[in-house]
Amino acid sequence: MATKEPIITLSAGPVAAYPGVMRALSRPIEYDYDRHFLELYEAVNRKVTQALRSATPALILHCEPAPGLEAAAASLIGPDDVVLNLASGVYGKGFGYWSARYNKELLEIEVPYNEAIDPASVEAAFRKRPDIKIVSVVHHDTPSGTINPVKEIGQIVRKHNALMLVDAVSSWAGMDIHPEESCSDVFVTGPGKCLGGAPGLTIMAVSDRAWKHMEANPKAPRASILSLLDWKEAWRHDKPFPFTPSVAEVNGLDGAIDLYLAEGPEAVWKRHALTAQACRAGIKAMGLSLWAAREEIASPTCTAVRVPDGIKDSDILAASRALYGVVFSSGRGETQGKLIRIGHMGPVAEPIYAVVAVTALGGALRKLGRKTDVGAGVAAATAVIDQARA
Amino acid sequence: MATKEPIITLSAGPVAAYPGVMRALSRPIEYDYDRHFLELYEAVNRKVTQALRSATPALILHCEPAPGLEAAAASLIGPDDVVLNLASGVYGKGFGYWSARYNKELLEIEVPYNEAIDPASVEAAFRKRPDIKIVSVVHHDTPSGTINPVKEIGQIVRKHNALMLVDAVSSWAGMDIHPEESCSDVFVTGPGKCLGGAPGLTIMAVSDRAWKHMEANPKAPRASILSLLDWKEAWRHDKPFPFTPSVAEVNGLDGAIDLYLAEGPEAVWKRHALTAQACRAGIKAMGLSLWAAREEIASPTCTAVRVPDGIKDSDILAASRALYGVVFSSGRGETQGKLIRIGHMGPVAEPIYAVVAVTALGGALRKLGRKTDVGAGVAAATAVIDQARA
Amino acid sequence: MATKEPIITLSAGPVAAYPGVMRALSRPIEYDYDRHFLELYEAVNRKVTQALRSATPALILHCEPAPGLEAAAASLIGPDDVVLNLASGVYGKGFGYWSARYNKELLEIEVPYNEAIDPASVEAAFRKRPDIKIVSVVHHDTPSGTINPVKEIGQIVRKHNALMLVDAVSSWAGMDIHPEESCSDVFVTGPGKCLGGAPGLTIMAVSDRAWKHMEANPKAPRASILSLLDWKEAWRHDKPFPFTPSVAEVNGLDGAIDLYLAEGPEAVWKRHALTAQACRAGIKAMGLSLWAAREEIASPTCTAVRVPDGIKDSDILAASRALYGVVFSSGRGETQGKLIRIGHMGPVAEPIYAVVAVTALGGALRKLGRKTDVGAGVAAATAVIDQARA
Amino acid sequence: MATKEPIITLSAGPVAAYPGVMRALSRPIEYDYDRHFLELYEAVNRKVTQALRSATPALILHCEPAPGLEAAAASLIGPDDVVLNLASGVYGKGFGYWSARYNKELLEIEVPYNEAIDPASVEAAFRKRPDIKIVSVVHHDTPSGTINPVKEIGQIVRKHNALMLVDAVSSWAGMDIHPEESCSDVFVTGPGKCLGGAPGLTIMAVSDRAWKHMEANPKAPRASILSLLDWKEAWRHDKPFPFTPSVAEVNGLDGAIDLYLAEGPEAVWKRHALTAQACRAGIKAMGLSLWAAREEIASPTCTAVRVPDGIKDSDILAASRALYGVVFSSGRGETQGKLIRIGHMGPVAEPIYAVVAVTALGGALRKLGRKTDVGAGVAAATAVIDQARA
Repeated sequence: MATKEPIITLSAGPVAAYPGVMRALSRPIEYDYDRHFLELYEAVNRKVTQALRSATPALILHCEPAPGLEAAAASLIGPDDVVLNLASGVYGKGFGYWSARYNKELLEIEVPYNEAIDPASVEAAFRKRPDIKIVSVVHHDTPSGTINPVKEIGQIVRKHNALMLVDAVSSWAGMDIHPEESCSDVFVTGPGKCLGGAPGLTIMAVSDRAWKHMEANPKAPRASILSLLDWKEAWRHDKPFPFTPSVAEVNGLDGAIDLYLAEGPEAVWKRHALTAQACRAGIKAMGLSLWAAREEIASPTCTAVRVPDGIKDSDILAASRALYGVVFSSGRGETQGKLIRIGHMGPVAEPIYAVVAVTALGGALRKLGRKTDVGAGVAAATAVIDQARA
Repeated sequence: MATKEPIITLSAGPVAAYPGVMRALSRPIEYDYDRHFLELYEAVNRKVTQALRSATPALILHCEPAPGLEAAAASLIGPDDVVLNLASGVYGKGFGYWSARYNKELLEIEVPYNEAIDPASVEAAFRKRPDIKIVSVVHHDTPSGTINPVKEIGQIVRKHNALMLVDAVSSWAGMDIHPEESCSDVFVTGPGKCLGGAPGLTIMAVSDRAWKHMEANPKAPRASILSLLDWKEAWRHDKPFPFTPSVAEVNGLDGAIDLYLAEGPEAVWKRHALTAQACRAGIKAMGLSLWAAREEIASPTCTAVRVPDGIKDSDILAASRALYGVVFSSGRGETQGKLIRIGHMGPVAEPIYAVVAVTALGGALRKLGRKTDVGAGVAAATAVIDQARA
Repeated sequence: MATKEPIITLSAGPVAAYPGVMRALSRPIEYDYDRHFLELYEAVNRKVTQALRSATPALILHCEPAPGLEAAAASLIGPDDVVLNLASGVYGKGFGYWSARYNKELLEIEVPYNEAIDPASVEAAFRKRPDIKIVSVVHHDTPSGTINPVKEIGQIVRKHNALMLVDAVSSWAGMDIHPEESCSDVFVTGPGKCLGGAPGLTIMAVSDRAWKHMEANPKAPRASILSLLDWKEAWRHDKPFPFTPSVAEVNGLDGAIDLYLAEGPEAVWKRHALTAQACRAGIKAMGLSLWAAREEIASPTCTAVRVPDGIKDSDILAASRALYGVVFSSGRGETQGKLIRIGHMGPVAEPIYAVVAVTALGGALRKLGRKTDVGAGVAAATAVIDQARA
Repeated sequence: MATKEPIITLSAGPVAAYPGVMRALSRPIEYDYDRHFLELYEAVNRKVTQALRSATPALILHCEPAPGLEAAAASLIGPDDVVLNLASGVYGKGFGYWSARYNKELLEIEVPYNEAIDPASVEAAFRKRPDIKIVSVVHHDTPSGTINPVKEIGQIVRKHNALMLVDAVSSWAGMDIHPEESCSDVFVTGPGKCLGGAPGLTIMAVSDRAWKHMEANPKAPRASILSLLDWKEAWRHDKPFPFTPSVAEVNGLDGAIDLYLAEGPEAVWKRHALTAQACRAGIKAMGLSLWAAREEIASPTCTAVRVPDGIKDSDILAASRALYGVVFSSGRGETQGKLIRIGHMGPVAEPIYAVVAVTALGGALRKLGRKTDVGAGVAAATAVIDQARA
C-alpha cells in the first residue's frame, strides 16, 4: 500500500472496533448447523434483545444496515400503504427513494439539513392525511450530525395507529434510544457504529404490530435477502437459517455486546456525550461553526463542523491525515463539501479524543492558512472534561 | 452454552478458517473511505482477480453467496430472457426459483440428484430452443457432493452465443475451475469454503458480455443489495462504495487469498483431491456407498455418503459428535436424511482428516449397531495416502 | 520457510494452545504499573492458586520451567542441605546437576528410565540418612513418559520432616496432582503443557515451610532471575515487580486458566486419561511396545513408544510429518533414539487425536518397511473410546 | 477488575504493541523442534541481526532485558576483570551491583542523574587505570530520560582494547544506535520498547571479541538461564535449544521486526524524534522543566518532566488517568517522585501523541491546582509538528 495506516480514526463509521471485538472476530469459524454455534447464535440474539431493551426478540440480518433498511422497506411497506417520510438529512431523504418502490403514495416532510423534524409538523400531517400508515425517520442523520426527536414523534405516530420505522444506526448504543420507549415498530441499527463492532450486520427490533403488517403484505419478499420474515425465527437454536449467517460477524457482535453490557449502557452513553460536548466546546473556541442549527440537536455521537469559507473539505481531511494521522469523515451527498464530521463512537467516545479531534482539525486549518487558535480550542475542550470529572 | 465446542469440523461449509485468516479478521477496523482502506480494497480485488484467473476485475458483494446468487439472477436475467436451468441437485433446482422471478421462460434439464448433467442434453436443448439466452448451472452441487462438467457445457453455451451463470461456491479454490477456461459469464463463489476463509462475502467474475447484458436489462436493480452494477467499479480506490463494505470480511479475504496464492493453487487442489480420494477409499472399505452414481463425478471437496438403511442421519451426526467431537454435514432438502457429507475444504483438506472422517463416521455407525470395520476403512484410506506420497 | 506448517502437533510440549489462549495472547500490551494490569496480575495469581489448590499464593516466574527449576534449586538448596534426588528419567537425573551446585551433599536413587521410583526406597534412604533435608523428584519424567508415585513419596518426606521439590511441569492440569495433597513444598509447573497455554512462564506453589527454608538460606539469590524470594509478594497489586513481567504471557495464562476452571479440572483430566488409554491400546494392537515398564506408570499426558529394532526414530518422525503432517516428539538425552513420544496435552487431549497418533505412527512405520496393521491399531483405539463414552 | 482499562498508554515501557504484533502473538504455538519452527527461529534471528546491523548473529535470550543484563554480566565479567561502570542514572548505577558480583574490581564514574557521561572522563579513567577490561554504560537511562554519548565512549574503549557493554534497551529501534558503529561488544536490547513488541525477550549483539572473552571466563555460567554461551548457536535450525524458547514471544518478535524493517528504520527514528521534540516544546510552553540538564541529552524515546514543587507525582499520574485515561510512568529509585516520564515508543511514537501527553499532563496539573496553560502547550507542540511536516 502506498498509504500508511491511519494513527487515530475519528470517522462517522465504520469506526475502530474495541480490542475485545477484534479478538472475538478471530475466533474459530464454526459450522452454522453445529449445535454449539446454534446455541451461540441464540445466546447472542438474547443479549442483543436485552441491549435493545426490546419486548420482541431481536432480528439480525446478515448485511450492513443500508441494505438492512432496504430490506425493511421492502418487507414492511405494502402496495396500499401511505408513507410519511421525514427528511432532515441525506439519509432521511434517501429512505424515501426506497419507500417509493413499494408504497401507494409517499408524503414527505423535509426540513433544512441542519435542522430537526418538528413533532408538531407530524401531528399536522396526520390531521391532513389520517390514512398515513407508516412514518419513517432517521434518528441520527449521520451526514448532518443531527438528532431528530424520535420519542416525541413516536407517540404521535402510535396515537394515530400508524407504524414508525426508525433508522437508529449511528445513535443506538451511544445514547439513550430504544425501540419500546420511542414507540418504534421497526428499529434499525447495527454493530459498526456506537457499539464499537464491525460493520457487516444489521440489528433490528420489530414490534408485533410490524410483524403482523409484514405478514399481511402480499409483496413482502420471501426467499430473498430482502426478506425480514425469512429470519424471524432463525435466532432459535432449533430453527434453520434461510442462508449461511456471517459467522465471523456474529462472533464479533458477541464480543461487542458483551463489552456494552459489562460496561453498562448508561456509562457508555455518558462518555459519548461528554466527548461530543468537549469537542463542540473546542470547535467553537476556535471560531468554527457547528453544522447543527442549534446545539440541542447536535448528536452526542458525531460532531459536524461547517467548513470555513474558501477552504476545501478534502484539503482539511488530507492535512489532518498528513500532519497527525487523524482521520475524519467528509459530508455525504448534499452535505458533502459543506462539513467535516468527527465521530465519537465506540472506543473513541472518550474525552481525550475530543482533544485529538480539536487539535487535528484546528492544526489542519491553520496549515491551510486559516488563523486558528488551536490552543484555545484545546483549553475549552479540556475545561469541559475537567468540570465533568471533578 | 450447554454444548461444548466441536473438536474437528469436517462440514460442507462454513468450514474452519486457516489461522492466518483468523488473524486477518482481527485487524483493526478502518474507515472505508480512508485512503489506506481504499488501497487495500483495490489490492484485495486485484489478488482475487488473479486467483480467479479472470480477464475482468473481480466483483465482491457484501453478502454470502446465496444472496449473491439471488443478486446475480436479479441483475442478469431480463424480462425477455429464456433461461435454461440445469438441475442435478438441490442448489441447481433452487436457482430455477430465483430465475423464474425475472425471466420470460424457464426451461430445465433435471437429472437424478446423484447424477451429473450430460453436455449432450444441453446441446440438444439449444437445438430445440435456439432462443435460450442464459444457461445456469451449479458446478459442485454441495447437497449431493457431485460435480457437473461445466467446462464442456460452457463451450456449448458459448457456441450458441448464450451466457452461462455458474455457481462454483464450493468448488473454486479446491479444484481446477475458473471463469475463463470454463466460458463462464457470471462465475459465483466465495471465501467460506475451499479458500478457508469466513462466510459473509460473495466473489464473482463477470464477463464483458454479461456486463453488457446487465446494462441492457431494464429491470436490473440499482441502489439495491441485489445490484451487481452498483458495485462494478467500487473496487477502484477512487470510486465510492454503494454502501459500507464489510471491513472485517475484506480483511479476512485478504488473509485467505494471500495464503492461497502463497501455497500455490495447484498444491492446494492436490491436497483437496488426495483427501477426498483417501476418504472415498475408506468409506468403501467399510462397506458404505458413495452417494454419487459414479466416482468420477464425486467432488474432491466434499464426500457424500449414503446413509445405510435403518439408520437415521441425525443419529450418525450426533454419535460422531459425542464420541469424537467430529462434525459432519447432513443433506439438504431432497437429500436430507439420505446422505452424510464430509467436507474437504481449506485447512481440513489434508489427508489426515480423511482418516479422522472415516474413523468418526465408521465409529458412529458401529456405535449405532451397524457392523462396521473401522480398521479396514482406515487401512484403505492410509494406503491411498501412502501411495500418493511415495 | 522451506518447510510447511505442521497439520497436527502431538508433541510432548510446547503444545498447540487453545484458540482462547491465542486470543488472550493478542490482548493489548499494558504498562505493568498501570492499576488495571496490577489488578489483572493479582486476579490471575488468585485463579492460578485456585487451580493449584494451593494453601499459599501461587508464584509466577517470568521464564519457562527449566530455568524455573534452576531458580528453585538455587533458592531452596542451602550449603548445609543434604539432598536426595530421585532419578527415574532424564529430567530427574538432570535436576541432580543443578542441585549439586548448591547442596552440601547429593544422594541419589536412580532406577532404569522406563521405571518409577519405589517409595520404599525413599523410606530406606531416610532410615540410612536421617539428615536428608530436601528430596527432589519429577512427577512425570517427560522424556520417558512415566509417572512417579509422588503422593506416596510426599508422605514419607513429610514424616521425616524434609522438604520435597516436585517437577510437575508436564502432568499438572492433565491429571490429579496438586501441591497440598502430595505434600509438595516446592511444586513446579507451567502453562505450556497440559494447560494448553504458551511456554514462557513458570508456575509454582511454595509451602510456608519452604519459604522459611529459603529465607534462612544465606546463599538464596536476590536481585536475580534465580531468585524466588524476589517475587514472593509481587502478585499483590500494591507491590512492585522485581523486573518487568512478560505481559503477553500473563494474558495468555489468564486465558488458559479461565478455560481450565470453566471446563472443570476433573473433566479435563478425564479426557487426557481417555486419550492416552486409547492411544496405548492402538499402539499395542499394532505390535508396538510401550516404553514404560508397566502400563500403570505410563503417563496419561504422554505416551512413549519404543522404537522398533532396525528403524531410526528420526526417520519415523520425518515419515509421519511427510505423509500426514503429524508431529511427534523424539526422546531426550538417554532416551533419544529409543522412543517416540506422543503428547496428549491441552487441546489435543481428545480421543480423536489418539486415532490420529496411531494412524500417523503406524503409517510411518509401514512406510519405512515394518509390517504394521494400522487398521488394527485404530480399531483398538476406537474400541476404548466407544466403551468409555457408552 | 475494579479499574477500567487505560485509554492511551504513554509509558516508558512496556508499551502498547502494534496491532501487527498482537496478531503475531496469536499465531498457533508450534513445537519448538518441529522443522517449521526451527526455520522460523533462524529466520527471525536473521532479521533481528539485520535490524541490529550487527556483524555477528543476534543472540535472543528468553527472559526480559533486566535478567538479560544480569546474564550478560554473569557471562562476560570474569574474576580477573577490572570494570569501569558509567552511572548517569538509576539503571547505570544498578548495573554496577550486578558487576560487583563477578568482577575483580569495580571503578565507577558517576554524574548527576540528569546529566550525561563526559567521554573525556572515560579517557581520563583509562589513563589512570589502563587495566580496565570492561566498560559498562546505559545508552538511554530510562528513569532519567537521558542519553549517553555511547558512540564517542565506544571509540575510546576500543582504542584502549577494552570491551564495552551497552544497555540500549529503550533506545534501540527508536533512534540511530547499533552495536557496530558504537563499538559495542555486548549490546543489549529488547522488543518491548521502541520496537513496539511485547516484553519477555532479550535481544543482544555480541562481538567476536566478547564471545572470546566469555569463552575464556572460567566462571561463565553454563546450563543456566544466566548463560549467554548456551544460546550462542541456538539460532541455527540444526542446533538444539538449551531450554524451551518462548514460542509466543518469538512469534511476536517476528511480527515486530517485520514492521520495523518494512517501515524503514530511518522513518521510525524520525517519528520518534519528532514526537519527543513536539512534546518537549509543549512541556516548556506550559512552564514546566525538563528533567534533562540540557535538551541535547533528552531522549527522543522518552521525555522526563520535573515534578513541580508542592505536587506529588502519584497525584499527577492519578489525575491524568482519571481525567483522560492517559497513562504515564513515574520515576524509578532515585528519580521516583522527582519526575514524570512520557514514553514515545513504538506505535505511540507519533506526533499526535505528543499533543495527548501535553494535554493530559497539563490538564492533570491544572486539576491539582497549578496554573497551567494547556492551550499554550498544545499550540507549541503543534507548531513543531506543523513545521516538521511542511
